[in-house]
Amino acid sequence: MSLVCGIGERMVEELYLNINPLQTGGRTPADTRKAIFSWVDGYAVCDACKGSLRTTDKPPIRQFIEDVSAFLGMDNALLTNGAREAKETVIHSLASRDDWMVADGNAHYSTLVAAERNGVPVIRTETSGHPTFEITPAMFDEAIERGTKEHGRPPVLAVVTHVDGNYGNVVDAKSIASVCHDHGVPVLLNAAYSAGRMPVSGRELGVDFIACSAHKSWAIGGGNAGLLAVNEEYRDRIIRFSKEYPVKPIEILGCSTRGSEVVALISSFPHVKERVKHWEREVAHARSVVSRLLDAGGFSLLGMSPKEHDIIAIETPAYDEIASHHKKRGYFLAKELKSRGIVGIKPGRTKHFKFSTFGFTDEQVDYIVESFLEIKDKYM
Amino acid sequence: MSLVCGIGERMVEELYLNINPLQTGGRTPADTRKAIFSWVDGYAVCDACKGSLRTTDKPPIRQFIEDVSAFLGMDNALLTNGAREAKETVIHSLASRDDWMVADGNAHYSTLVAAERNGVPVIRTETSGHPTFEITPAMFDEAIERGTKEHGRPPVLAVVTHVDGNYGNVVDAKSIASVCHDHGVPVLLNAAYSAGRMPVSGRELGVDFIACSAHKSWAIGGGNAGLLAVNEEYRDRIIRFSKEYPVKPIEILGCSTRGSEVVALISSFPHVKERVKHWEREVAHARSVVSRLLDAGGFSLLGMSPKEHDIIAIETPAYDEIASHHKKRGYFLAKELKSRGIVGIKPGRTKHFKFSTFGFTDEQVDYIVESFLEIKDKYM
Repeated sequence: MSLVCGIGERMVEELYLNINPLQTGGRTPADTRKAIFSWVDGYAVCDACKGSLRTTDKPPIRQFIEDVSAFLGMDNALLTNGAREAKETVIHSLASRDDWMVADGNAHYSTLVAAERNGVPVIRTETSGHPTFEITPAMFDEAIERGTKEHGRPPVLAVVTHVDGNYGNVVDAKSIASVCHDHGVPVLLNAAYSAGRMPVSGRELGVDFIACSAHKSWAIGGGNAGLLAVNEEYRDRIIRFSKEYPVKPIEILGCSTRGSEVVALISSFPHVKERVKHWEREVAHARSVVSRLLDAGGFSLLGMSPKEHDIIAIETPAYDEIASHHKKRGYFLAKELKSRGIVGIKPGRTKHFKFSTFGFTDEQVDYIVESFLEIKDKYM
Repeated sequence: MSLVCGIGERMVEELYLNINPLQTGGRTPADTRKAIFSWVDGYAVCDACKGSLRTTDKPPIRQFIEDVSAFLGMDNALLTNGAREAKETVIHSLASRDDWMVADGNAHYSTLVAAERNGVPVIRTETSGHPTFEITPAMFDEAIERGTKEHGRPPVLAVVTHVDGNYGNVVDAKSIASVCHDHGVPVLLNAAYSAGRMPVSGRELGVDFIACSAHKSWAIGGGNAGLLAVNEEYRDRIIRFSKEYPVKPIEILGCSTRGSEVVALISSFPHVKERVKHWEREVAHARSVVSRLLDAGGFSLLGMSPKEHDIIAIETPAYDEIASHHKKRGYFLAKELKSRGIVGIKPGRTKHFKFSTFGFTDEQVDYIVESFLEIKDKYM
């Protein structure tokens, strides 16, 4: 398998519409691709280092950290290697022996593994279950009380998944944060699928920390990067500096995303600021897709309705029935989609799957939904 | 400041010879640049995910991990976000409360900060001091005994800097490992400036862990990436899996370098395997530069002699004298070098500086040393 575009299959795949939710928010603008290419050698961002990543002015990392903190409605930020590393940083900074934390029932696995790395038990909230999988403020209240009884103390942290990656549900983060604060519990918003796609203000939501995924939702392309935004109250507990090397933040071992990724982040930031202004268009796309699929029959929605996000999960009994007598079985669907220039759903799945319409044009969104319907009609 | 090559200054800088030791081992081969560009969108490597980064076959990450473990003379490996994260992984996995560790007196700051993040005190060995800054096995023996008295127990780990970034000294890792093992102490080799540049075999050196820096020494370009190679004895203590998500290694929170960097690593690996075979040529280049500078007078070597590595530190009283009466003071040197197409030393420094001749052709190495001499002769 060649790894190089122009010889291998990636080039072909890039001409396709990739509807995988992991990919749609990470597509790189052309100038960001060029910026990555310009800074791709060695530790090029360290050429004009002033002692640490966060104080580097060339490229303008120091300014970016200020600007992105303001953009997120927070007071300060750390560059991290990704959203999971951002979450781990908060857990590691706050938790002591015998502490525990609360998370929602739709939490990403990396939230749980980050807690596990720190030996911190997690109590998860319930969800409303199939088919909406909703998380409510009352569920956080219940989980905090249940955990407090079990552990004899309130949780050290609540990690709230702003938008989960399975159903694209947007939680009422403001009310959940309020419930957590009523229990004296600081709130980390996992904004991996929200910040960078849709407007997110920590100040409006009343959260203490925001973890962002640059590859998932900040249009920076393939490099690992994330952001941890923090409010003033917790700044010094998170952004602690080494005793011996006082310019080096301990949590990120001095410098985290110390390559072309940070240049990509700076480069894509104007695009991100612009695109979140058009979030209503993204929601309208998602709603139109869902409504056309449900109207056609043979499809039903997983997750809450109406859609408030571009990640769409659907049950597809229509496709499942086709798979039961198709000679390619469940693989027929991915093959049919690919023949129409659409990739990004797990091959073999026909009971249910998820996809994202983020960033596609009206015409592309129409084309995607028409392809889904055409494939159904072809066999039924 | 434009971030994009072709508009901003990076393009110009890339036409220069960059002699910064941080950069020379990270220069990307053309096909690796193309590979990065082909995999730059979102989480593209996750398109064919089988549950975790290390088991992904498309791109062939699973195979790469096997191959690179063998290349390093070790039994297994974890992909990490960098060498510092690799070191932190070992410290975090091994150290318990009240443990301490030993490191050499030339240790990189990130070794110390990684220990600090885990609350693990570090006892450092002496060095021979100015001008050779040598680290000997006896110094490790002394530091282990001193620390054992102070802490009432032997260290949980020894971190040995294979090649330090200030003087380019190559330590006798085999003898140091043997001393540490005599005290029952496992050995982590910080190979950030060795593995990927020169032949390194964990089996021959008798070390338990090897931390590698992909950006510093594996020709992968700007993305964050590293490798932690481990021997069989410690494998299960380092590569532990989540209880709830048994395919996800806890230490790397499931998946570490989950972007185009891992594709770059796979792509550059054939180049790296080839280039370490020509390590003698690199050493010969460094020796020839040093010998010509010392013969000319006005320069003296920092670090051990003869050179065994491409990182060269020199004291430059000749330049310092010029700076004392030059109207640009210490900045004349960087300016003179830049006018000759050479960048990568800290502007303003004339007492001493470091540079690297890694990867340059015979003609380029000649050109670099002749430029140094010409600048001296111009003013003296």
